[in-house]
Amino acid sequence: MPSSPIRKLVPYADKARKQGKHVFHLNIGQPDLPTPDVFWKAISEESGSTLSYCPSNGYEFYREKFAKYYREFVGIKDVDADNFIITTGGSEALIFSIFSTLDAGSEIIIPEPMYANYIGFCSSGNINIKPIITSIEKNYALPEIAEFEHAITENTKAILICNPNNPTGYLYTKEELERLKDIVLKHDLFLFVDEVYREFTYGGEFYSILNFEELKDHVIVIDSISKRFSACGARVGAIVSRNQEVLDTCLKFAQARLSPPSLGQIGGAALFDLGKDYYDSVKEEFSARRDFLVGRLLNMEGVLCPQPGGAFYLLVKLDVDNTDKFCQWLLESFEYEGSTVMLAPGSGFYSTPGLGQYEARIAYVLKEEDLAKAMDCLENAIKEYKTNVMTSDSVFDQTLS
Amino acid sequence: MPSSPIRKLVPYADKARKQGKHVFHLNIGQPDLPTPDVFWKAISEESGSTLSYCPSNGYEFYREKFAKYYREFVGIKDVDADNFIITTGGSEALIFSIFSTLDAGSEIIIPEPMYANYIGFCSSGNINIKPIITSIEKNYALPEIAEFEHAITENTKAILICNPNNPTGYLYTKEELERLKDIVLKHDLFLFVDEVYREFTYGGEFYSILNFEELKDHVIVIDSISKRFSACGARVGAIVSRNQEVLDTCLKFAQARLSPPSLGQIGGAALFDLGKDYYDSVKEEFSARRDFLVGRLLNMEGVLCPQPGGAFYLLVKLDVDNTDKFCQWLLESFEYEGSTVMLAPGSGFYSTPGLGQYEARIAYVLKEEDLAKAMDCLENAIKEYKTNVMTSDSVFDQTLS
Repeated sequence: MPSSPIRKLVPYADKARKQGKHVFHLNIGQPDLPTPDVFWKAISEESGSTLSYCPSNGYEFYREKFAKYYREFVGIKDVDADNFIITTGGSEALIFSIFSTLDAGSEIIIPEPMYANYIGFCSSGNINIKPIITSIEKNYALPEIAEFEHAITENTKAILICNPNNPTGYLYTKEELERLKDIVLKHDLFLFVDEVYREFTYGGEFYSILNFEELKDHVIVIDSISKRFSACGARVGAIVSRNQEVLDTCLKFAQARLSPPSLGQIGGAALFDLGKDYYDSVKEEFSARRDFLVGRLLNMEGVLCPQPGGAFYLLVKLDVDNTDKFCQWLLESFEYEGSTVMLAPGSGFYSTPGLGQYEARIAYVLKEEDLAKAMDCLENAIKEYKTNVMTSDSVFDQTLS
Repeated sequence: MPSSPIRKLVPYADKARKQGKHVFHLNIGQPDLPTPDVFWKAISEESGSTLSYCPSNGYEFYREKFAKYYREFVGIKDVDADNFIITTGGSEALIFSIFSTLDAGSEIIIPEPMYANYIGFCSSGNINIKPIITSIEKNYALPEIAEFEHAITENTKAILICNPNNPTGYLYTKEELERLKDIVLKHDLFLFVDEVYREFTYGGEFYSILNFEELKDHVIVIDSISKRFSACGARVGAIVSRNQEVLDTCLKFAQARLSPPSLGQIGGAALFDLGKDYYDSVKEEFSARRDFLVGRLLNMEGVLCPQPGGAFYLLVKLDVDNTDKFCQWLLESFEYEGSTVMLAPGSGFYSTPGLGQYEARIAYVLKEEDLAKAMDCLENAIKEYKTNVMTSDSVFDQTLS
């Protein structure tokens, strides 16, 4: 098991806090907005009861509300409660569905950089990742079909994408998804699409992979209430599929761990009663943060920042020698006006060794005022690091000239 | 992945309910007592906040309270917050700790019958179970050391027991644990002890494996608040160990799935403030239920019932041809005064094919009044099944003469 790039610096952050520094957490996708009141209200109504196991595939009342949300807000007409298996966060949804469809030794194609935990999950099942490399210079867009064709072998069983993307913020176009559809059908693959950030789009249109009728038996969508409703601690995710065999196998894994958390579903069901206003207000907030952050980064010397179309992440290139070292140094040795900033080093988002060492992921999950202070920290930190710590020449001179 | 014997009959139970029958659920270890008020109160105080991820190893405030409970109520003096990794139920604690210590192809010795999900967890990691068979006639006590020695090969890496035992209700004596200790030290094995039922003992004394100083590096205890506090839906378990290397590896698995449920820990921390009175009252209730149930079963023709010393399960032998068939028939075709009873067929608690077909697990998790009605059902069901359904001779004639 590799360590999580998002969490491996936690001990250094703890130490920084113990030294009295304030740490701006931009390393983890933990939105700061309060979990909506309806969530808390629904749970408080359970007081005095027995907090029981729920069915292994989740409460039926929860799955029904969830299916209704898919019909009304995602626009997928032909799904009902039976198309869902409720899991302990999106993490478990990924593990169950990957382990239900791929044997040890088989291959899965994932555009790189990728969500770090995909690497961990595949590693724990001895599933080989075949990365398709996307580049910051092309805004991390999907490469040409030819590259996929090139990567496919007789052991390739699936493709996995995250849309909108974590860590790059890239929003896939309908055309790109159509290209993926063709490859999936041609080679009879599974297509996993992690759509947990689908409400977080800025400018472009989100297109759910579930819209493709032809992919009925191929598609497995990963979902979660964590980001959508600022309820990460609830640990309630889901597998969404129309492939009954896949769902049946996932259910065996689900039964083996008994059940997903009950409280998160009790509160979560109430969240699906929220209307379009809720989604609009969240999108507006994050859209403003994105604009602010991108504006700051573009004006920062030694930072290459693409324009993200969704989610709440940016994967930026920094003019430092090594972001693993830099991010640790930020916590251990740097301070600006009593604060420092925690980022996720880029290397952990690559399965290919050596890549990502100049990149870092920034999660814009704080309010603008805090983002401003965090950017002040980062701007000063880069200067100080380059002047006092770095011994090699500028990264940009080496790699971008 | 095998199906869970505890849950695989769920569709038949759903059908029975839809037919208007009341189903007494004795198939699953879901206590009926209300979750203590302090749990609900602590959660309600979070209203209005952001339900965040917690650290991958669990909240520090929770681990501190948990360690205090170990020092005060389990009598283990030298444990602190760092000896715990908080997990999503005991299930995840088992998965993480087994996967952190055993490679695919290695062997683990488990007394049989065993908790059904041990079989599923090991199967999903391609870990081979070497069962040590215990028998109902000897009250499922641990067999002689010689049998363990016989089972150990160069691939054997661990022994796993559940104390008090699920599904048999057997409470291990200090002497038995000492014998296990000697084997573990002699062959340098890991020893997993699932102690989630430690407060549920009747007559005998529970002895935690953590008492053995010599096993510091060998012992991994599995724990959970589910049974102790009637909070199964919280999904909060734990790994307890003094082996830092094991804890470090488990933490990597923990980081990969981000974090355990936050709400269960927020409520759970308050549960550890409950005093001895709470544990005594729960024990008293379950002790009375056990006495009642064993009394009923011993008076039932065609039932062989051992005397359980702990947990809230009985694994009984029934005079039927096949408990898989019988338990399904109970739900599909039987009814007594508008009710029927759901049991867990014995075969699922054996990794050895063919064993357990005359046994069924009964969880005494209902109040006495309901247990009485459930036993009325069972008594009548056995008679009717033998008269109208079974075609073969009596099982007892075949196997116990």
